Formats: sequence, structure tokens, C-alpha cells
Amino acid sequence: MIQTILLKNRPKGTPTPSDFEFVKEDINLTPKEGELLLDTVYVSVDPYLRSRMSDAKSYIPSFELNKPIHSGVVAKVTASKNDNFKEGEFVMGMLDWKTQQISSGKELMKVDGDKAPLSAYLGILGMTGLTAYLGLTQIGKPVAGETLIVSGAAGAVGSVVGQIAKNLGLNVIGIAGTDEKVALLKSKFGFDAGINYNTSTDIRADIAKAAPNGIDIYFDNVGGPISDAVLFNINKFSRTINCGAISVYNETELPQSVSVQPFLVKNSSLMQGFIVSDYEKKFPEAMQQLAEWLAAGKLTYTETVVEGFENIPKAFMDLFEGKNTGKMIVKI
Amino acid sequence: MIQTILLKNRPKGTPTPSDFEFVKEDINLTPKEGELLLDTVYVSVDPYLRSRMSDAKSYIPSFELNKPIHSGVVAKVTASKNDNFKEGEFVMGMLDWKTQQISSGKELMKVDGDKAPLSAYLGILGMTGLTAYLGLTQIGKPVAGETLIVSGAAGAVGSVVGQIAKNLGLNVIGIAGTDEKVALLKSKFGFDAGINYNTSTDIRADIAKAAPNGIDIYFDNVGGPISDAVLFNINKFSRTINCGAISVYNETELPQSVSVQPFLVKNSSLMQGFIVSDYEKKFPEAMQQLAEWLAAGKLTYTETVVEGFENIPKAFMDLFEGKNTGKMIVKI
Repeated sequence: MIQTILLKNRPKGTPTPSDFEFVKEDINLTPKEGELLLDTVYVSVDPYLRSRMSDAKSYIPSFELNKPIHSGVVAKVTASKNDNFKEGEFVMGMLDWKTQQISSGKELMKVDGDKAPLSAYLGILGMTGLTAYLGLTQIGKPVAGETLIVSGAAGAVGSVVGQIAKNLGLNVIGIAGTDEKVALLKSKFGFDAGINYNTSTDIRADIAKAAPNGIDIYFDNVGGPISDAVLFNINKFSRTINCGAISVYNETELPQSVSVQPFLVKNSSLMQGFIVSDYEKKFPEAMQQLAEWLAAGKLTYTETVVEGFENIPKAFMDLFEGKNTGKMIVKI
Repeated sequence: MIQTILLKNRPKGTPTPSDFEFVKEDINLTPKEGELLLDTVYVSVDPYLRSRMSDAKSYIPSFELNKPIHSGVVAKVTASKNDNFKEGEFVMGMLDWKTQQISSGKELMKVDGDKAPLSAYLGILGMTGLTAYLGLTQIGKPVAGETLIVSGAAGAVGSVVGQIAKNLGLNVIGIAGTDEKVALLKSKFGFDAGINYNTSTDIRADIAKAAPNGIDIYFDNVGGPISDAVLFNINKFSRTINCGAISVYNETELPQSVSVQPFLVKNSSLMQGFIVSDYEKKFPEAMQQLAEWLAAGKLTYTETVVEGFENIPKAFMDLFEGKNTGKMIVKI
């Protein structure tokens, strides 16, 4: 029995269970020459998938209606007629939300469960780590002694951004949504300070207090009112990495914010959208640096692992309520 | 009789005549050793002066209350005890709004009325030309064949931006506020297309029509709703030069706009504040290129010249109603 999750409707606002459809097929898949059969082991759910579910113009094509959704997946090779892969090996790639599927082997990367836990290849050693490292270094251009603030700080990317910034000698402030997350930023990830945006009565002032020298780099995962508050604290020549805008992805009206232009003009400041796939050429050097830090104990990570194929949509929807700490992964 | 204009009040919203105070002094100025006496010839009035009149944190210090306002000025040396300057020479610098003043000669640049009209040193060969050239080249990084849009296109900086972009082989669209200005963009400055934001019923659609291949570079002098409309038309990897935000300088409430973050994320796009003084090291090469184009007839400019020292505040206030075409200058 093979299960598949299709995109049934384009979500209006926050995704709901009715936007997804489960299909069961009682068939046996057999790889043809050059193909391999994959059993899904881990599925990554990520905020950016929300924008692929809408049909607005975006940097990657929209998902098609009534077709399988796909995302980063770690899978086990259970049969192979492809010389590059052997039965029993594990691979990582952009694969369908299916319990089992056939692949040509193209754009699959082998992963080694002895070097790091298999799920890490969807996180710290995968797109999450690459996004944090390359966004920070390529756009943020950090200099030791500067002050960095990151929103969505306890999230998958945010928690890695902060640790990398600490490794590079920066003063690091994180913004997150619960006291537990804020505590974790300091105790587990080594941040210098944390702000709970849900209990703060004046985020702008709390940022000013946490960053007496102002903000040099803002790694922005959220957009919206939190980003507005950061604007009032940026330094001359500050850099903002616009990595995501999770706070507005579900809005059905066009979101409004404080006008950024006067702040940018006054401070000679930069804001730049970041999409990790633009930096593919830098992946090898970034992976090497991340693996080194991980081996040296200079990077740690958290995962929220949800069990069961049937819980993939729920895990995805939970992202928008901040129910995850670190990378959200579904184990099949 | 020496006349001076002081900042009497910090303007609330649009500046009014009561924000300025005229002072007359019946004194004779005599330069001491190393000093020179200057008679003001041309005074530049510029939108950025508005932000210096407020006491908000900015990239340059605020003007002090009850002290003379200053801006770019061309003056004639009428007496000199400084070996670097001779009586009868002309100089350009940041000088007080006074009919006559003493200077140490520091940070004054000699200008040559035989090479170009004296007023050009406040415009096309001064800060205006440098702003257009360096903002476009340093942040915009133009590539022949790309499409550029500029707001405030008939203004001092905007009209030069468009011409430089044409010299560099770009497709150029200008946004301005009257049909006369739009006509001028095409007939005088060689723009490919123009949009009148006051008569357009859908700026966003009009931009799309004028730029079928989308916008690669946006040179933004205005901020506000015009900049919102441009956002919907930006291409992947587009660059926005945030040079000014004249549309919001006079707002007393914090201006709101469409959230830029989702657009930047989707398009890997860049926005960066530009202040010409950050690029001082590039002034000589920029001046040389501008002078070459001017001599070759590949740059033209317009000025709105208002006569009379007493009209300086009015000329400044008229900027915010778009009464100027090109550089606004007061002749004393």
C-alpha cells in the first residue's frame, strides 16, 4: 500500500487539513533499468512550502493542484537498477510526499548515517545549515564585534544563524515566541540575549536595551511587526538578510508595514532577499565548514520530530503556530 | 548689509515660512590671516535638507535652531588672505545661507566658469550628478539591455540617472507628476517611456506595460505608493537604490507601505540606501566621466532658477510641490 499527499486546494490564509488529500494505492512499484525504488524515511516540512502552494509569481514554480507535494526527503534505497546506488544506501533529495516512490537517481545525494544522524541531512548539514551559513556570510558579511539580531531565532535556520555568528565573534540577540525558546537560545545555543515577542510590551525598546550599540546585521525570517521594530535600531551600513517572511505568508490581504525606505536612506543600509539555491556554487565550502564546526562541538541543533506519514500536513501547519523548536521533521 | 536665514522652528509636516527667520546685520566683514571673504552667487535647495531640519537621528547632524541653514553654494572670492584663493575666483562648498560670509577655505573647491556654467557645479557636475552616477553604478550595477525605472524622474537627480542609464545601454522609464514633465523625459532626456503618476489610474499596471520584461533597477527618489507599485514589477535579482523618500519626508505620522520583505525574498532582490558622501573616494572618477559626457553632448540638464536671496525658503518649499524641473537653484 503506497500513500501519497496531494495539494487539493490552494490555501486561503493559513493552510487547513482540507487543502491536502491523502491517496492510497494498492500497487507494487518495480524499478526499470536505471531507476531505483525508495522508501521514505524522513520528510522535511518548511515554511517556504507555503508560497509554493499559492499560484503567485515566485522564485520557484507553484505546486500543481491534485499532484503530490514535494520537499526535502531522506529515503532508503530498497531496490536499484542504477549502478550509482546500492540497495540499503540512504539518499537525500527533493522527493514527493509518498511512502514509496521510483526515482531516476538524478539530483539525489548519498548520505551517510555513520557520520551524522540521517535527519541532520535535512537540517544542519542540509538546506537549513546552508541557508544560515550562506545567508549570513554572503549578504550579512559579518565582522567580529558587530551585533546581529535574528528573528525566528529558535527555529531551524535561526538557531544555526546565531551559533555561526557566535563562532564568528559577533554579539548575538535572538527573537522568539515563548519563554522556553528564549531560555534555550541562551542555554543551548549560546546567544547573548533573547527577546520574547509575545510577552514584550515594546519590542523596539527591548531590542535597543539588548543592543546598546545598535544592530549591524538582521537575519530576518519573519517580516511583519518584528521587522518593523528592528528597523528603528539599525546602524549605519547595516545589512538585513531577508530569508523569509513567515509572519505574512498566510495573510490574504496585502501586508502593510512601516515604510523601510526612509530608514534605508538614513542609514545607508542594505536589505536583500536570500534564496539558498542562488548560491549552489558555494555549497561544498559551506558544507565543509558546517561539518567541521559540528564535529568540533561548535554547532548544535534541535529537531522537532513528528511520527507518521499521516501527520505531515499537521506538522507543516504547526510551523505557522511556532510549535516547533528547531527543524521540523516527520519520521515515516 | 548682510542677510542670513536661520532655522527658526523644526517644521511639523510641510515646512512653512514661519520656520525660517531672516536676520539683517549692518556690519563689515574683513578676512583675517588665512581667511577669505565670499559673496554668495548661487544657493542649492535640496529635498534632503528637510531631514536635517528635524531632530530625528540621521546620517548627518540636524541643523541647530536659531543658527544659519547651510547647503551647497557657489560663491565669489571678494577678498582673500589665504594663499590658495585669489580675489575674483569662484568656489563651491557647503556654506551658510548668507549673502556674504568669511571662510577658512577648508573644504572649498575652486570652480571654473569657463568650463561650465557656474550653477552646473551645484548640479550636473556637483552633488546631483555624483549622486546619480554613483548611486546607479555602485548599487544599481547596470548591465546593457536591462530595464531601469526612476521616480522623481524630471527632478535634478532623476533626469541625470535616466540619461546615464541610456548612455550605458539600458531601457529607461521615468515616473513624474505632470504631462509636461513626462514629455520632457522623452524629448529632452531621451527616456524610452514616461508615466504620469498624477493621472495614472493604475501605476502598477502602467509600469508593467512600459516594462514588459520587468524592472531590473529601480532608482527611488520618492518612496511611498509609487515605490509600492514598482515592487510588483521587479525581476529576480533586481536592485533598488534608495536615494530619497521625498513623498514621506513631510509626514508627521510614521509612513506605512506595502511590506517589501516578501517581494525581496521571492525575487532575491536588493534594496540599499544611498548617500553620496559615503562614496567620496569615487568622486574624481565620477566627475571625469560626467564632464566627458557633458562635453560630448551626451548629458543635458535643466535648472529652475529662482532669483533673490529672500526667495530661498520659498524655493525650498516649492520642491515638495514639484514646482521645479531639474535642479532647483536660487541666484543671489
